[in-house]
Amino acid sequence: MITLSVDAMGGDLGMDATVPACAEAVRDIPDLEVILVGNPDKLRSRLGRNPGTRITVHPASEVVGMDDTPANALRKKKDSSMRVAINLVSEGRANACVSSGNTGALMATARFVLKTIPGIERPAICTALPKLHGHTHMLDLGANIDCPPEILYQFGLMGSLLIRCLGGPENPSVGLLNIGVEEVKGSEILKAAAELFRDGPLNYRGFVEPDEIYMGSTDLVVCDGFTGNIALKASEGVAQMIMGTLREEFSQNISSKAAAFAARPVLDRVKTRLDHRHYNGASLVGLRGTVVKSHGSTDRVGFRHAIEVAVEEVRKDLVTQIAESLTGARD
Amino acid sequence: MITLSVDAMGGDLGMDATVPACAEAVRDIPDLEVILVGNPDKLRSRLGRNPGTRITVHPASEVVGMDDTPANALRKKKDSSMRVAINLVSEGRANACVSSGNTGALMATARFVLKTIPGIERPAICTALPKLHGHTHMLDLGANIDCPPEILYQFGLMGSLLIRCLGGPENPSVGLLNIGVEEVKGSEILKAAAELFRDGPLNYRGFVEPDEIYMGSTDLVVCDGFTGNIALKASEGVAQMIMGTLREEFSQNISSKAAAFAARPVLDRVKTRLDHRHYNGASLVGLRGTVVKSHGSTDRVGFRHAIEVAVEEVRKDLVTQIAESLTGARD
Repeated sequence: MITLSVDAMGGDLGMDATVPACAEAVRDIPDLEVILVGNPDKLRSRLGRNPGTRITVHPASEVVGMDDTPANALRKKKDSSMRVAINLVSEGRANACVSSGNTGALMATARFVLKTIPGIERPAICTALPKLHGHTHMLDLGANIDCPPEILYQFGLMGSLLIRCLGGPENPSVGLLNIGVEEVKGSEILKAAAELFRDGPLNYRGFVEPDEIYMGSTDLVVCDGFTGNIALKASEGVAQMIMGTLREEFSQNISSKAAAFAARPVLDRVKTRLDHRHYNGASLVGLRGTVVKSHGSTDRVGFRHAIEVAVEEVRKDLVTQIAESLTGARD
Repeated sequence: MITLSVDAMGGDLGMDATVPACAEAVRDIPDLEVILVGNPDKLRSRLGRNPGTRITVHPASEVVGMDDTPANALRKKKDSSMRVAINLVSEGRANACVSSGNTGALMATARFVLKTIPGIERPAICTALPKLHGHTHMLDLGANIDCPPEILYQFGLMGSLLIRCLGGPENPSVGLLNIGVEEVKGSEILKAAAELFRDGPLNYRGFVEPDEIYMGSTDLVVCDGFTGNIALKASEGVAQMIMGTLREEFSQNISSKAAAFAARPVLDRVKTRLDHRHYNGASLVGLRGTVVKSHGSTDRVGFRHAIEVAVEEVRKDLVTQIAESLTGARD
């Protein structure tokens, strides 16, 4: 049986997203058990009369807000749904935790409560991003601003194992994010990291430019958290801008609205292919426990996907795999 | 009279883009004179019999390739169309130079030949990027990988003056690119730069996140060249991916092709609004001369736009404005 502790109060939609997603997940995944952490009365009333035996409620009196600082969440909200959900993992009562709470607080709390895997200096955040066909995983997305070469290499190791756990290729191709593919480009840190990757056992393919994340053939793109976060948020901005332009033009007048009606099935397919909910669920890798961060604004569909990411990591025991790969590397 | 020297052989399309764009520009701009630099025979045959008196040819025997290194272009291709076009600016025979040649080579050559404005430590590359409504200028886009706070501040100064020259607001709002808007976020360099901006005379609005480039209200976004290049190329990748998805879905079967036909006028308007050719023409700012870099893959329409950017910079005498703003700052 796989037990997930779910921060049921976090994210913009809170219980409106988490409770139905969890109910659906336990219905569809027979060996899944969910502990909803949060306000017991509210959760029970939301769950209804017959939630089944595989979905239970665990009390927590506080909620970490989207603008709580990591320090504040850690020091002052010790009974938050986020903190208690992570505690359940650390106490061995849950195999993994899923939260839509704010990323900084989640990473700080998870790191404080669970600690990192021996040999891992810094945990990182890794997610899948959509490609024209398929997807690319990228890390770090914002947990670590400056990253020395060794840390970048560890990211490559952890990301490769994560991709395998999630059903990707056995030996994922790895690229190092840079502003050019030539070996002379980029900072000294990147050049030193490239050397580590070249000498190591990963399926390293060299530097990749950021458009490769969306158009290329690399399974994993490695970068420091500042660069990853810049690339991610710039991408989100462009996507919003393009979608906004499409929306504006298709609703401008009667004839464009008629065109929108005619094109609806096609536009719906485009929307489905680009739907970020199907990519929701960023893994906090490098911790002694499985923690998946769901996007703050996601709904039932997105949260459900984050649950599935956590379940896969537990099934394949990613934490042990990362720990063992490091022991192997040191031998 | 404004005289432009044009690297007529650079870029993917070479003369197919540059010659018609220049012919059009001299036709439409009565006080413009263009010197086409490159292979005289080829250029003359391309120009036809009556090119007019305001379009002349200047010989250059070499071409800088898209993968020539800056060092190679500088040392070994002294008679390249790019180099000779820049020489004409330095000799006072042209007021500005436009080239679609490779960015690294162009910046290195321009810097070597023209030198920087006294007080400017590093020239930068600045361009406009499309927003849902309007556009945002951003710099540096790739010339300077590491930038201390003072350099970032100079970028803000130069970018603000450029925006004014190009007909933007008198006092452009300036944001510093970061992964969060809170003052505690980002590197020490960014925090120190923020302090310089806060104390200076620019219309500084604080940190902005990368999605603000495309969705926000800031006129100018300042960042180091590594970050800017990452944001730019990630954006290009996403845009290509979304456009590719639209294309695929609209051409999947008979009914989606019919929908594409019905939606054609709307899709064409979307395409026009997002057309990067209307944003073509990145300014190399901080040099003792006006140099505009056109996208390597652009066509006649895009190159024409880059010419217009150069003309505006000359008309408003951006180089002198930057020089004077620095003298003012030192007094």
